[in-house]
Amino acid sequence: MNIIDLNCDMGESFGTYKKGYDEELLQYVTSANIACGFHAGDASTMRKTVQLALEHGVGVGAHPGLDDLVGFGRRTIDISPKEAYEIVMYQIGALKAFVEAEGSSLQHVKPHGALYNMAAQNKELSAAIAEAVYNVDANLILFGLAGTELYHAGNNLNLRTASEVFSDRTYQQDGTLTPRSETNAIITDHRTASKQVIRMIQEQQVLSQQKIDIPIKANTICIHGDGEYAVEFARFISSALKEANIDVGKISDFLPLK
Amino acid sequence: MNIIDLNCDMGESFGTYKKGYDEELLQYVTSANIACGFHAGDASTMRKTVQLALEHGVGVGAHPGLDDLVGFGRRTIDISPKEAYEIVMYQIGALKAFVEAEGSSLQHVKPHGALYNMAAQNKELSAAIAEAVYNVDANLILFGLAGTELYHAGNNLNLRTASEVFSDRTYQQDGTLTPRSETNAIITDHRTASKQVIRMIQEQQVLSQQKIDIPIKANTICIHGDGEYAVEFARFISSALKEANIDVGKISDFLPLK
Amino acid sequence: MNIIDLNCDMGESFGTYKKGYDEELLQYVTSANIACGFHAGDASTMRKTVQLALEHGVGVGAHPGLDDLVGFGRRTIDISPKEAYEIVMYQIGALKAFVEAEGSSLQHVKPHGALYNMAAQNKELSAAIAEAVYNVDANLILFGLAGTELYHAGNNLNLRTASEVFSDRTYQQDGTLTPRSETNAIITDHRTASKQVIRMIQEQQVLSQQKIDIPIKANTICIHGDGEYAVEFARFISSALKEANIDVGKISDFLPLK
Amino acid sequence: MNIIDLNCDMGESFGTYKKGYDEELLQYVTSANIACGFHAGDASTMRKTVQLALEHGVGVGAHPGLDDLVGFGRRTIDISPKEAYEIVMYQIGALKAFVEAEGSSLQHVKPHGALYNMAAQNKELSAAIAEAVYNVDANLILFGLAGTELYHAGNNLNLRTASEVFSDRTYQQDGTLTPRSETNAIITDHRTASKQVIRMIQEQQVLSQQKIDIPIKANTICIHGDGEYAVEFARFISSALKEANIDVGKISDFLPLK
Repeated sequence: MNIIDLNCDMGESFGTYKKGYDEELLQYVTSANIACGFHAGDASTMRKTVQLALEHGVGVGAHPGLDDLVGFGRRTIDISPKEAYEIVMYQIGALKAFVEAEGSSLQHVKPHGALYNMAAQNKELSAAIAEAVYNVDANLILFGLAGTELYHAGNNLNLRTASEVFSDRTYQQDGTLTPRSETNAIITDHRTASKQVIRMIQEQQVLSQQKIDIPIKANTICIHGDGEYAVEFARFISSALKEANIDVGKISDFLPLK
Repeated sequence: MNIIDLNCDMGESFGTYKKGYDEELLQYVTSANIACGFHAGDASTMRKTVQLALEHGVGVGAHPGLDDLVGFGRRTIDISPKEAYEIVMYQIGALKAFVEAEGSSLQHVKPHGALYNMAAQNKELSAAIAEAVYNVDANLILFGLAGTELYHAGNNLNLRTASEVFSDRTYQQDGTLTPRSETNAIITDHRTASKQVIRMIQEQQVLSQQKIDIPIKANTICIHGDGEYAVEFARFISSALKEANIDVGKISDFLPLK
Repeated sequence: MNIIDLNCDMGESFGTYKKGYDEELLQYVTSANIACGFHAGDASTMRKTVQLALEHGVGVGAHPGLDDLVGFGRRTIDISPKEAYEIVMYQIGALKAFVEAEGSSLQHVKPHGALYNMAAQNKELSAAIAEAVYNVDANLILFGLAGTELYHAGNNLNLRTASEVFSDRTYQQDGTLTPRSETNAIITDHRTASKQVIRMIQEQQVLSQQKIDIPIKANTICIHGDGEYAVEFARFISSALKEANIDVGKISDFLPLK
Repeated sequence: MNIIDLNCDMGESFGTYKKGYDEELLQYVTSANIACGFHAGDASTMRKTVQLALEHGVGVGAHPGLDDLVGFGRRTIDISPKEAYEIVMYQIGALKAFVEAEGSSLQHVKPHGALYNMAAQNKELSAAIAEAVYNVDANLILFGLAGTELYHAGNNLNLRTASEVFSDRTYQQDGTLTPRSETNAIITDHRTASKQVIRMIQEQQVLSQQKIDIPIKANTICIHGDGEYAVEFARFISSALKEANIDVGKISDFLPLK
């Protein structure tokens, strides 16, 4: 039987600034990546979002980012692997405290934005991030983009590692995402997007932009939390997966132990 | 037999900015209060300072402060108890991760600067801080100025709570520290300072500025880490305590369990 | 003939965080208080908001706040007059550059939030703020709450100083605003609010909560930019003033030169 | 007759963190690049450093950097030309206010660290930075590394542009500085360093690491302000220039008007 996790970035408000549709999306997703105060989020937002996620029975993850609030962690900063280790550890620790204070435990870690993208391609950076996760708690699950250095780094350390796929992004023949700067990077049609992920789950294949099928492993689907259609799309893909007889469950419930 | 802990603020560097004499002071103190990135410190400094403190066998504590790097956490900010709970929990969690990643465990929490001073006088703020400490880990020791709201708040929650005294500050008849704005607030003579703390430990008394003895409980002495005479004073007081047959040990080794 | 300025806080977005209804409100207000990067705003938002305000022919002002993004500059921070001078000067300078780069000139300065409230009551702080304004450019107009220390500080330095009134806040017998913590602090009814300001302009009087008329000088009305009814209220009060034969114009066009 | 400007980064303290030997160095340098609060510096440090520089009759410049205090503006951040324009304008404006408040005027702008290095190689980024300088005040002098995009960008806009050389860095055949990661990047011997700049000034030549002379234009020499030998080196190079009959004067006094 097929099963998949739906993850979404959350807790991206900051102070009086509100962002996202956390409460609505928590009806559909199974894992929440909660911002940790560097690219977004603050202590108050973290606490509130952790509580909200736990009320919905969703797996709670840390979503560490670059220290760049004004750029929302989306701008590449040339940090060293050592710095990556340190800022990831700091942020995981901060979020973990809020989760444990609520009597629960942290499920996973997914780096954010530019840190995630840099890690995907950089072996040393990924190794440092995976090591930070491992050293904080070897039972944590690391999320990495399917086929990338981050995914490999998690496996190399024997962390449970979730292979993440995108429903609304197109793929290149080498397994990478089509850069956002190119046309056809984004799949805007809900039906096309859901078909792409259903095929990833059922056939472990995705059709690349070069019209060649490439193998892909899907443990968790990234659901975007911003944009006006975020909630609508989350609802749509939930239904589509159900109709395709694919179970939706939180990653810690089905990803094999190492 | 008498025993006392010597605690000192550490890890107060930030990025390329260096502050303090951590390595030298670690020869004399038994508990290190490590800054957590709000009033001072950054992820890299935290990691390094935690490692250094552990190498010296010193008890490692979180030193959460107000979110005011430019003011070094010394300016009062009118935060709510809820905000205090949240920023303290965030910072404890961040530091705890570094300590646990090194295979050790966090010993204590001591709020910094204005947060410490506000808590001393504010019951609701102190209760919120103590609750944050308790909810992260009920085995943590909370440091509070002797006789203040923060000290009571820790005890009220059944946290192990250390009564902190100052060697180089004078006391008022009501048990509060003489404000720094007044003359005679600071004891600059090493001999006078050490005599004051020795008497606190041996007789549980201190002579107030009003020339009246007041009762005081001393579990830990605050050793200032900045200033050019910091190391010299730490060495001096260590010797003076030894000569007075007072043992110096880390707080977790002798403070009774609750 | 009676004339009044309508001012509104603007440019309070930050990075990817959006706040306020700047474009809609610029149809009704005559002076824009633009955040300068401390409590809100960033360089990009400042530039964009300055351009937008100038396109609408609105007077552009700096809106310096406390260095507290997470608290939106609303939490009292115990800064010294010297620090107030410095942070106000810094922020005015930053905004002034954007205004002058667009070929225009800065009209006014209005401190934000807690800084505005602290200044209202604190003579030294107000003197320092007024001095900063004066030293950057003696032709700037300072906005101060009617009858407060900030208003007096501007006049004492011979700055053109605008007496600011609130349409939607009630007043105490001593001329201060009823604290937000009290019931009746806010006037939610548009009609009542507009009547209050029209009387202030026409009769230089306002009925205090103690049911006693107090004298008040109104040069500019503070229009709140947040909240869902902000635009509706701005439109309403514009019409109400027009019907009462009160001209609405930017402060620099009618406030007498010193 | 030969004349050269000596410039040095200053005002790099932050809050309670002290950095540099500003007061000592001001005896030798003729232009001060003052940090503007992004990579270093704060409003209080800026004011104090501006006052100090003016007391010494030194030309005051803005030293805008990337918004990265923890990295001291030395880490590349992938900002757009638009963002570069905006953060440079913001920082120039802030510093300009402090200079004008002291009754003087801003002399120059020199980008800091990674921003300077990125600009050296990136035409669009350099154009944006030069445009920001021009739009704030077309009389400002822009400092750019000799032969780089930043230097050209200033000239293209008809800004007075100073060609900056390093005494203590070696050059590559293509005119770029040898990267710090390579051996031989730094000239540690004072005599060798001073000979290199004297030859640059007198012969407009420098011997590259490839043992080939390359042409170079020297209007100003970068004197490093940190490191324990900073003051000693500044004194040494001042004497050496004097002995070589090279005048040392501030850039605005001798760089031809456009």
